[in-house]
Amino acid sequence: MTTALFEKHKAKLAQATDALAARSYWSPFSEMPSPKVYGETAADEGKRAFESYLGKRFDLGQPGQVGTHAGEQSPYGVALDVHYPVCEPQALVDAALKAMPTWEQLGAQGRTGILMEALERLNQRSFEIAHAVMTTTGQGWMMAFQAGGPHAQDRGLEALACAWREQSAIPGEVIWEKPQGKNPPLRMQKHFEIVGRGVGLVIGCGTFPTWNTYPGVFAALATGNPVIVKPHGNAILPAAITVKVIREVMQENGIDPNIITLAVTTENSATQALAMHPAVKSVDFTGSNQFGNWLLDNCKQAQVYAELAGVNNVVIESTDAYRAMLKNLAFSLSLYSGQMCTTTQVIIVPADGIATDEGHKSFDEVAADLGAAIAAFVADNKVACAVLGAIQSDDTLRRVEEAHTYAEVVLPTQALAHPEFPAARVRTPVLLKCDASDEKAYMQERFGPISFVVRAADAQAAVALSERIVREHGALTTGIYSMKPEVVEAMVEATWRGKVSLSINLTGNIFVNQSAAFSDFHGTGGNPSANASYADSAFVANRFRVAQRRFHV
Amino acid sequence: MTTALFEKHKAKLAQATDALAARSYWSPFSEMPSPKVYGETAADEGKRAFESYLGKRFDLGQPGQVGTHAGEQSPYGVALDVHYPVCEPQALVDAALKAMPTWEQLGAQGRTGILMEALERLNQRSFEIAHAVMTTTGQGWMMAFQAGGPHAQDRGLEALACAWREQSAIPGEVIWEKPQGKNPPLRMQKHFEIVGRGVGLVIGCGTFPTWNTYPGVFAALATGNPVIVKPHGNAILPAAITVKVIREVMQENGIDPNIITLAVTTENSATQALAMHPAVKSVDFTGSNQFGNWLLDNCKQAQVYAELAGVNNVVIESTDAYRAMLKNLAFSLSLYSGQMCTTTQVIIVPADGIATDEGHKSFDEVAADLGAAIAAFVADNKVACAVLGAIQSDDTLRRVEEAHTYAEVVLPTQALAHPEFPAARVRTPVLLKCDASDEKAYMQERFGPISFVVRAADAQAAVALSERIVREHGALTTGIYSMKPEVVEAMVEATWRGKVSLSINLTGNIFVNQSAAFSDFHGTGGNPSANASYADSAFVANRFRVAQRRFHV
Repeated sequence: MTTALFEKHKAKLAQATDALAARSYWSPFSEMPSPKVYGETAADEGKRAFESYLGKRFDLGQPGQVGTHAGEQSPYGVALDVHYPVCEPQALVDAALKAMPTWEQLGAQGRTGILMEALERLNQRSFEIAHAVMTTTGQGWMMAFQAGGPHAQDRGLEALACAWREQSAIPGEVIWEKPQGKNPPLRMQKHFEIVGRGVGLVIGCGTFPTWNTYPGVFAALATGNPVIVKPHGNAILPAAITVKVIREVMQENGIDPNIITLAVTTENSATQALAMHPAVKSVDFTGSNQFGNWLLDNCKQAQVYAELAGVNNVVIESTDAYRAMLKNLAFSLSLYSGQMCTTTQVIIVPADGIATDEGHKSFDEVAADLGAAIAAFVADNKVACAVLGAIQSDDTLRRVEEAHTYAEVVLPTQALAHPEFPAARVRTPVLLKCDASDEKAYMQERFGPISFVVRAADAQAAVALSERIVREHGALTTGIYSMKPEVVEAMVEATWRGKVSLSINLTGNIFVNQSAAFSDFHGTGGNPSANASYADSAFVANRFRVAQRRFHV
Repeated sequence: MTTALFEKHKAKLAQATDALAARSYWSPFSEMPSPKVYGETAADEGKRAFESYLGKRFDLGQPGQVGTHAGEQSPYGVALDVHYPVCEPQALVDAALKAMPTWEQLGAQGRTGILMEALERLNQRSFEIAHAVMTTTGQGWMMAFQAGGPHAQDRGLEALACAWREQSAIPGEVIWEKPQGKNPPLRMQKHFEIVGRGVGLVIGCGTFPTWNTYPGVFAALATGNPVIVKPHGNAILPAAITVKVIREVMQENGIDPNIITLAVTTENSATQALAMHPAVKSVDFTGSNQFGNWLLDNCKQAQVYAELAGVNNVVIESTDAYRAMLKNLAFSLSLYSGQMCTTTQVIIVPADGIATDEGHKSFDEVAADLGAAIAAFVADNKVACAVLGAIQSDDTLRRVEEAHTYAEVVLPTQALAHPEFPAARVRTPVLLKCDASDEKAYMQERFGPISFVVRAADAQAAVALSERIVREHGALTTGIYSMKPEVVEAMVEATWRGKVSLSINLTGNIFVNQSAAFSDFHGTGGNPSANASYADSAFVANRFRVAQRRFHV
């Protein structure tokens, strides 16, 4: 049966490994929530499936259940009240270890086939998952569908394909024959067994509960490990549905479903204890520096793959498309109210302004024009609400509300009334400006729709400031706007040293905060914002080991 | 010029990557110290080159030199008195960082070509390096030539080929084109730049100063990093020659030779400061648990690849070739006086003895017969001295001399007079026996020619004990002798859980402590004896990162 699944998905897997090598456009899961792709009834069924969870017990059939937990607060004000099973962490670990040997011995091919099937099944549930993502995170519908569904599935398949590439490079068994001159050769048979490291703990975040979770889940499972998913306390439902779907696919294929379980913990200390459990050998984490650094400092028994805070930035030196640049930036800053780990926070502009196709613009003009571009974008309430979504956390809301104290306000935030969800907390981006010397204002992550136009002495100082921010505080994305090749080149070299992605002169429908699976590496793993990347060899290669045996033949 | 070197070595590189995929026998550098391979004059020239260093200053032309250091003590009693440059660590780091950008921008192809050339040049110096290895480590001549020369070069090429495979999987530039339905596609050009992590520190050991150093050196250099080699204080010369040769090849190709330097430190604290230097991003280490764990605990700014202590073990349940088994084990235990990180320390035998082709043998008979086999092997003084070599360190000598206090002596150690080096400290293996419950005797690494025959309740307990040793104390090698498929199978599964290599029923000219590049993984990276393996994807993949840039076209 597992061989059959591998055969079923072999062609797509080959496409996926080819795509990894080509890194040109490839997306196996359609990002259009269209009836033509997903079926005429998919949208309705997905919505109903989502609604069927509300106010009920969410059953997973996991061991060691000691109670239930509810408490997700929707940024849209939707009542969720889903009651999730709370299980003894030790029972989940025990069950994971019990499930592990069969899963390991299935081999890379068997595991990959089942996981390809699971991804396909998740894809079929994209509407249901999208509603869960939207309602828990505050994302707008289209983002929730795309990032929460197909794009997350793309990233899952990317990690799976990468793991397959690394595992399939190791032969299962070989004859080793060493010539001995005139004597008969030495001959041995050798077997190379791929074994997992142990339990993989995947800790989700509150903003992208599937997109930032699937790479770790699929990389760890693919390489022979059981996985325990610990979702963010306010974004449990998307993780719970994901775990449920994968458990079903496991069970259908004769695999102990406890190879993946959901750990709902009500205390931070319970998550910490789980992360330090001797059987836990990898931890995938997306979230705050505080908890991420705690993991890195304390979980010595495990490989920790961490995506932490950063200060993403863009340098504007000059442009030949001023309006298009402003529009592009305004959309970037508005998308999901700046609650993407890739959103620009700092926009660095030389003190004496920039050259543009509309003539010279002073520093203050650039700031004011960017503010106006944002204001223009959010002026259409319906479009604005669809793009902004709602503010995910109380902390972000607090930051938005106090942001005017951080620096001089260019554009204040504004509360919008959502046409569909009256209780939604919708806030437009706040734009501030300050001098480069005012580091306490902008030189730390201000997660949410809060950006700074920062005045640098000149273009060289702007590039140098970008590099220093990246090296000292980390960044997942940087951008440069310049018509001068030497400035672009200086920025390119700065990003090599800082080890960060760079987008150059984006003025169309690509935004600095977007990252496409199978082409864009998400994070480099080389600056403080993340020690790993979605998805490269390093993300998968240390999740398995090879135990060999040899004997004479 | 660098393209020319890549072209020159391209065919061999392709063979190397093919060999990694096949893992059948392949050795690019000949292990026979034969004039037919190395040239009629190579042996004499190598000896003279080695002798030319003795009593002299060893010049490397490195920056920041503040003095010289001599002090290597040869286990053969040969006067070395080579004076090495002592350089300010900060000067070496500064020079490394200065050399790094050009090296990075050369690209994987340029770097690989130069490093292939360097390996070929090292191969031509195999006799010289063999004398340096033999004299500093106490290895016998043949081992010093093979393990110190061609086998080390094989491992260097293996790491280089592995790094090439991972780097060449990433395209340099691509066009990304996303369809937009009826509208024109979104088109972007993307560049993927491979960048190094930073300075790679490679800390050598006293017993295998090239074999255990070349993988880290070549993996780190190949992936765009400068390297600082910190040799063991008593095995500087092999590292110094290696660094000198690589520096020469760099210089010939217009590369700043400070891309690799030798750090001779006289204080442990200086090594610690270097290992914790913020610019040092990887540390390769072979040596004691004490220092290795210090590195793992303290060098948070770096990836640490550590090979530490272990308790290698063999289970004997039954055999159909009793004499051949004893002979094989006796040779394993004698080779370089048990000073290999892969030598068996614990031989586990059921209390009620074993079935053999010579009838039943009791536990005590097995122990006594193994002792007799060792005694027979070392009875030929010339052969014994050639195989045993000399005792490398004072600590090992002390352990050999006090070993009779650890457990009941089966075969005492014996000092032999070396026919060529009167001052050589040659000791034959000591064999002890004890009960499995006497854990304080055998359940820790007793590095050197000290082995224990350990009495387990039965075969099942023997396998279980082996597994526990591996999981709790680590091991690079295990072995099993059994005619019962179910016992072999139980041991195989134990080694999957313990993540350790297994040799089954070795009775011929392959020994449990041998590990062949391009076929055998050295260490799995999955038990306490090592967190990395020579050489797999995980050994190379996290030594570089990819910084991408993208723009509309």
